[in-house]
Amino acid sequence: MQAIILSVGDELVLGQTVDTNSAWLSQQLAAVGCAVAAHLTVGDDQRAIEQAIEESVGRCDVLLVSGGIGPTEDDLTRQALAAVLREPLEPNEKWLHRLEAFFRKVGRPMSPLNRVQAMIPRGATMIENTAGTAAGIDASYRSGDQKTVCRVFVMPGVPKEMKIMFQRNVLPHVQHAGGGAVILARTLHTFGLGESAVAEKLGELMDRRRNPVVGTTVSGGIVSVRINARFLTLDEASRELAATETACRAALGDLVFGQDDDTLQGVLARDLMGHPGGVTVATAESCTGGLVAKILTDTPGSSRYFKYGWVTYANEAKTELLGVAPDVLRGHGAVSEPTVRAMAAAARERGRAHFALAVSGIAGPEGGTPDKPVGTVWIALAHANGMLARKFVLPGDREMVRDRSAKMALTMLRFHLLGKELPF
Amino acid sequence: MQAIILSVGDELVLGQTVDTNSAWLSQQLAAVGCAVAAHLTVGDDQRAIEQAIEESVGRCDVLLVSGGIGPTEDDLTRQALAAVLREPLEPNEKWLHRLEAFFRKVGRPMSPLNRVQAMIPRGATMIENTAGTAAGIDASYRSGDQKTVCRVFVMPGVPKEMKIMFQRNVLPHVQHAGGGAVILARTLHTFGLGESAVAEKLGELMDRRRNPVVGTTVSGGIVSVRINARFLTLDEASRELAATETACRAALGDLVFGQDDDTLQGVLARDLMGHPGGVTVATAESCTGGLVAKILTDTPGSSRYFKYGWVTYANEAKTELLGVAPDVLRGHGAVSEPTVRAMAAAARERGRAHFALAVSGIAGPEGGTPDKPVGTVWIALAHANGMLARKFVLPGDREMVRDRSAKMALTMLRFHLLGKELPF
Repeated sequence: MQAIILSVGDELVLGQTVDTNSAWLSQQLAAVGCAVAAHLTVGDDQRAIEQAIEESVGRCDVLLVSGGIGPTEDDLTRQALAAVLREPLEPNEKWLHRLEAFFRKVGRPMSPLNRVQAMIPRGATMIENTAGTAAGIDASYRSGDQKTVCRVFVMPGVPKEMKIMFQRNVLPHVQHAGGGAVILARTLHTFGLGESAVAEKLGELMDRRRNPVVGTTVSGGIVSVRINARFLTLDEASRELAATETACRAALGDLVFGQDDDTLQGVLARDLMGHPGGVTVATAESCTGGLVAKILTDTPGSSRYFKYGWVTYANEAKTELLGVAPDVLRGHGAVSEPTVRAMAAAARERGRAHFALAVSGIAGPEGGTPDKPVGTVWIALAHANGMLARKFVLPGDREMVRDRSAKMALTMLRFHLLGKELPF
Repeated sequence: MQAIILSVGDELVLGQTVDTNSAWLSQQLAAVGCAVAAHLTVGDDQRAIEQAIEESVGRCDVLLVSGGIGPTEDDLTRQALAAVLREPLEPNEKWLHRLEAFFRKVGRPMSPLNRVQAMIPRGATMIENTAGTAAGIDASYRSGDQKTVCRVFVMPGVPKEMKIMFQRNVLPHVQHAGGGAVILARTLHTFGLGESAVAEKLGELMDRRRNPVVGTTVSGGIVSVRINARFLTLDEASRELAATETACRAALGDLVFGQDDDTLQGVLARDLMGHPGGVTVATAESCTGGLVAKILTDTPGSSRYFKYGWVTYANEAKTELLGVAPDVLRGHGAVSEPTVRAMAAAARERGRAHFALAVSGIAGPEGGTPDKPVGTVWIALAHANGMLARKFVLPGDREMVRDRSAKMALTMLRFHLLGKELPF
């Protein structure tokens, strides 16, 4: 069972609207085992819509079209579909009555333009729209030799109307015709290693011929491992997904900080809130300029573990607010192990916290030296039994260096809470 | 000049990620008068990518492909492109050296997998990636009869890397090859009023039949006014764009903080750095948890005006670090005018700054009361001649409330530097 999703609208090809319908429909289809071969988007141009439909119907079992069935002159999907099917458009009396009743109810005259919304190709079926005036169309395309049959569903482009219509009228057909294959998915998130290093750890698990198939994606330095299991029964899909997930987790160990909707800060917040007795963390930041504190307080309820933070961007602030000795700053520089250690120790003490994170680095684009290039960052974690300080050289521009520094600081705390060493 | 945009990735056809690249690219192309015929999306499947490229190159003058050029086995765009071009993949020595240097710099070994990122089809040109390891590809497709020539640009799927590469290496080609009508664009950015209030101020300037045409978009609370002038000559387009821009600026006054690539923090940084004698700003934050300091230090060189920041998330931190009287906190609460005034006054004094911004609010989702619902935020600005304190009730979820609070704090300072009252 293979589907293609076609979105129609000038606002889409002009980039004025981001198409969220295709992703939503893909998720729905994947959940019932229907593979999506492609997404297509064309503007409000009858020939372009015709061509897209014509090419798609030969390549899939079900074509989902959204958009282009409004009442105005630039709504041309029904005309294009009729042309591909080589059938005339005919008025659907039932929907015409519904439209008339609708306009009576809202006390507005029905525009002649709206009449076109009750037109469908001969032989097709109208799909009721419970949330708007644009009815859908359910049609079957047959190739000349009758060998190819593709079911075509036309739905409104308005996401809310489309979703209701899909769930009521399209999903049951897809489920029934699908004959069973089930796709289950799981995503595991890691931070700290690059995409290729994660792939190396996964090794043969990433073989493209494997089922479940395992792939990686990167966003904001987070390398995510996607596992998709495609089987005939839910039982089998669940079992195989679980087995591959276990294998991936074994290969990656504690690099995996969470799954699916988890975020690094959300997982750390859970760890901190769930810590026996309750713990707090304070921050002392230079190059990240408050970002570590900001991320730590992204999560609702963060006041339970976060109370004090310092942004000591200038050297005099490091000295005045955190007591970093001017000698240390002069002798080793602001971006140095002794400086971040002193910052972390003071933040932990003055913030009466169980843990303190301190960050000092060169975010760039200025300020790098041969010894300490842009991207050099020292991070310290002060805890009850001592201190961990690490130097990193992070890639990218100012924004990336700051973002990765903050995530690295959180990662150091996460591993400390696990009682483990950083694995990189 | 006609373009097709092809996005590659299993995460896209599975609906796990919404494709925002296509809309962004379409906007960029539209702005220089290049029509977008279609968006296509296929999964990480070499045959599907090949087919999509093969069919597109015959139908457009420029094909923009994003995604599928990472280092792992599921990255197959380069292989598919080579197959369509009927050219072998060859290593590009220059990029190989760049990759090796990159891994040396970050102190990690280079995986053999990364080598594939330096492979391009024979005859194609590598496009430098300034923000990642995936270089782009610039190739030309010629049909058998040499009649069809389509320029193909392959870019990374990571939006940030794609955008930089598009602007540096792809846009100049498209602009140059476009010929014909000239489209000039200008975007004016505002913060503080909603989209409909901005539209009301613009009035008839927003008539859709106008040329230059004026439209609004919203992102992150920033309401931007897009002006597109489409004329036959550059002279005419420049003149008409300037006239409409002047009219828009007259309608919006100081609400406009910047244009085109300007950001609120970038403009404020410029104002602060350009202030006669040099001025500094300190921060004291509760609900924003460091975000105001983070935004103030987004801009390179921010150490010239930012030195001290406090994140006093807990009441005891407000008292201990900023001397906010426990009586004030008990009597008025942490989210109150007296509290933010005391925070701002202390931050200005202790941070020996010309200005101090203090923020305390209820970011939610918990903590709201009938008197102080979620979104209630007090912001104070302490300056040499006194103090300005304002209450806002901001819409949205936790992230939005925090983001808008920080932007509002910056906006208060911006208007103060202009010597103007807040216009809302």
